[in-house]
Amino acid sequence: MDAREILRAKRDRRTHARSEITDFIAGYVRGEIPDYQVSAWLMAAFLNGLDEQETDALTHALLHSGHVFDWSDLGRPSADKHSTGGVGDKISLILAPLVAACGVLVPMVSGRGLGHTGGTLDKLESIPGFRTQLSREAMRRQLDRIGVIMVGQGTDLAPADGKLYALRDVTSTVEFEPFIVSSIVSKKIAEGAGAIVYDVKCGNGAFMKERSSAVHLAERLVATTRSLGRRARALVTDMSQPLGVAAGNALEVRESADVLKGGGPADVRELTIELAAEMLVQSGAEAALATARARAVSALDSGAAWERFLEMIEAQGGDRTSVERADGLPAAPHVVQVPAHASGVISAVDCYRLGELVVRIGGGRRAKEDAIDPRVGMLVQRRIGDRVARGESLGELHLRAADPAAVAEAAVSFTIGSGEVLAPRLVIQRIG
Amino acid sequence: MDAREILRAKRDRRTHARSEITDFIAGYVRGEIPDYQVSAWLMAAFLNGLDEQETDALTHALLHSGHVFDWSDLGRPSADKHSTGGVGDKISLILAPLVAACGVLVPMVSGRGLGHTGGTLDKLESIPGFRTQLSREAMRRQLDRIGVIMVGQGTDLAPADGKLYALRDVTSTVEFEPFIVSSIVSKKIAEGAGAIVYDVKCGNGAFMKERSSAVHLAERLVATTRSLGRRARALVTDMSQPLGVAAGNALEVRESADVLKGGGPADVRELTIELAAEMLVQSGAEAALATARARAVSALDSGAAWERFLEMIEAQGGDRTSVERADGLPAAPHVVQVPAHASGVISAVDCYRLGELVVRIGGGRRAKEDAIDPRVGMLVQRRIGDRVARGESLGELHLRAADPAAVAEAAVSFTIGSGEVLAPRLVIQRIG
Repeated sequence: MDAREILRAKRDRRTHARSEITDFIAGYVRGEIPDYQVSAWLMAAFLNGLDEQETDALTHALLHSGHVFDWSDLGRPSADKHSTGGVGDKISLILAPLVAACGVLVPMVSGRGLGHTGGTLDKLESIPGFRTQLSREAMRRQLDRIGVIMVGQGTDLAPADGKLYALRDVTSTVEFEPFIVSSIVSKKIAEGAGAIVYDVKCGNGAFMKERSSAVHLAERLVATTRSLGRRARALVTDMSQPLGVAAGNALEVRESADVLKGGGPADVRELTIELAAEMLVQSGAEAALATARARAVSALDSGAAWERFLEMIEAQGGDRTSVERADGLPAAPHVVQVPAHASGVISAVDCYRLGELVVRIGGGRRAKEDAIDPRVGMLVQRRIGDRVARGESLGELHLRAADPAAVAEAAVSFTIGSGEVLAPRLVIQRIG
Repeated sequence: MDAREILRAKRDRRTHARSEITDFIAGYVRGEIPDYQVSAWLMAAFLNGLDEQETDALTHALLHSGHVFDWSDLGRPSADKHSTGGVGDKISLILAPLVAACGVLVPMVSGRGLGHTGGTLDKLESIPGFRTQLSREAMRRQLDRIGVIMVGQGTDLAPADGKLYALRDVTSTVEFEPFIVSSIVSKKIAEGAGAIVYDVKCGNGAFMKERSSAVHLAERLVATTRSLGRRARALVTDMSQPLGVAAGNALEVRESADVLKGGGPADVRELTIELAAEMLVQSGAEAALATARARAVSALDSGAAWERFLEMIEAQGGDRTSVERADGLPAAPHVVQVPAHASGVISAVDCYRLGELVVRIGGGRRAKEDAIDPRVGMLVQRRIGDRVARGESLGELHLRAADPAAVAEAAVSFTIGSGEVLAPRLVIQRIG
């Protein structure tokens, strides 16, 4: 194939045949098509568009650039969840063992945090000893025995997506829905789950600020996943304030443990139950959402989900006592209150700004090679609609060292007005 | 600078500041900005456009990526000509010594042929011994002594243009007017001529098929050249049939010699005189086109231009007897007539097809590394408006070996109809 023809076609707004996309990506992975041709195609596609069939074909090509897991011989239903990312989103840590405790396999592959959103792998690595890289054989054994694995993406899972993402990152072609959809879906399907539930975050702390773009992305994720033969569903959920109280790696593990033991913040518990119910229904383990919810609630309240979480930590080399004991996780040396700068009702939280603040104090990374301090973060104890008095605490900053600028930055992330403010709805829309 | 910001700006249809373009090209030449970012920018610019100021800035950046000649210390006016290329366009070979014979320096840097159009360097190299690479010092000495040099582009002339062109070629971003303008103008200005006359070809044998696009390109070439401080003028001329009779390297050198000696095809002589007159006026050597034309005619008819051509050949190591003797140039072993397939009036010539045919029989190249056979080509002896009888000869093919398919291909490139057909006008429009 002559890559110039592919570039010329998209440059001239023509629609690619499925085989053109397949050959182009295969040629790229084999090193026959150089980066400079692929990057020109990325820009042409970004500007002239890819339709749904082209997106499905791209997803298929990325998926089949590497190994595709198949757990069907384990003889149980399987499901997974993907979140588009937000501040304080620790749901995966609770959801994976919970759904496993309900009898559904969860072969979860997660990523690291970049920018203002956290990453599941970083949170898990707050647990001393926890290994996020397992051999294929170890993954199979653990999935068969415990029903859940939580690992990082190896180099053999959709490698074309990794190559393409790196190129998108340096050519300003990241924020393009067909690329986002194909990247997410190809990796998720490669994990081998039979059903995938998407949590598409919407609001100032999410990549999708507007409901309409979040809903559109959710629809495309579901449709593309189905076009590749897997069941799918999506929830569009609120990210106009942090999810739960904790934002920061060890702090979020502690909060996850609270929810797994039946406690924790109400919004984290509610969203976990909703997503678990969707996974149970999509995987075929339950017929209706109502019974699926009841099963999830029971797995939380009985301690079964918590026990599964501890088993997983042990199986992956982690120290289970670090989450069993109140002081088992690394803790920041400086904990300071963030005082309200006015009296009134919290009408808005600049969630993106709080996420960036957590990065700045050491809890996240701006570049892939940055190290993370698991101890730092913020407990956001007041929420939209809460009434506060001037000087009263809005939350706690957990810091490596005194940092008055961080306290001031956290305080001004809250807008305090007068009059009643309704709390935002957590689950905004269900798709699929 | 972060190249991603430049890509993002053009992706989002923003206009670049002059300094952004300067820094981007400088970073590319220094190797700090990789091909894959530049190629994505090429596609973004191709699709979202570059305005006149951006094109001027790009031209300036390409020009100053390398050496810029300055011949002003030689104390004479200087001028050069650039043609956008066509079939049988050997004008440079005649024009350069002619204008030099009129007292104006011609520091001409030319290229090689690619695709259906020929290249001046390839034609010159039909002359045994002719060298197209001269040192800077040799160029200066020869220009001072004879008034004309005809050389290839060294690596130090607008090197960024060479790098960028190679990338455009493999990313389907060649056919974009701002890139075409900046590439042509930066190289021409780097040669150091004080005035540049552009011959923009228009018709089925040219890159610009439509008059409107040829006129627009001519306007932009003139405006960009002036924005960089040089005088400029453009003629839009006909390429709906080959220029003159000969198409093919040695055949064109022989025809050039005929015109330099006061003979040759009328159209070649006419266009050479027009372009020479424009160069004499633009360089300041003559005040009006009428007197400039008379001076050019006199230089052709007196033998002064021919003598200058022979001096140049000698100075650049060529064998002057090869053009002085009728059989001095390499000749093809097979010469066959191309018979008319019908009786009537020639109403059209597929000039592009004839150009491609010359490439196929060995007279041009499809890839940069292809070798050229100087002997082969075609003498196109009938023109639009000529009446022919079936079986009568339309021209001669000069071949390495018998090739009936080439004869058939040549024959069907002529459309023969009934009724009168007006010959196309040679000079279509003057710009600037």
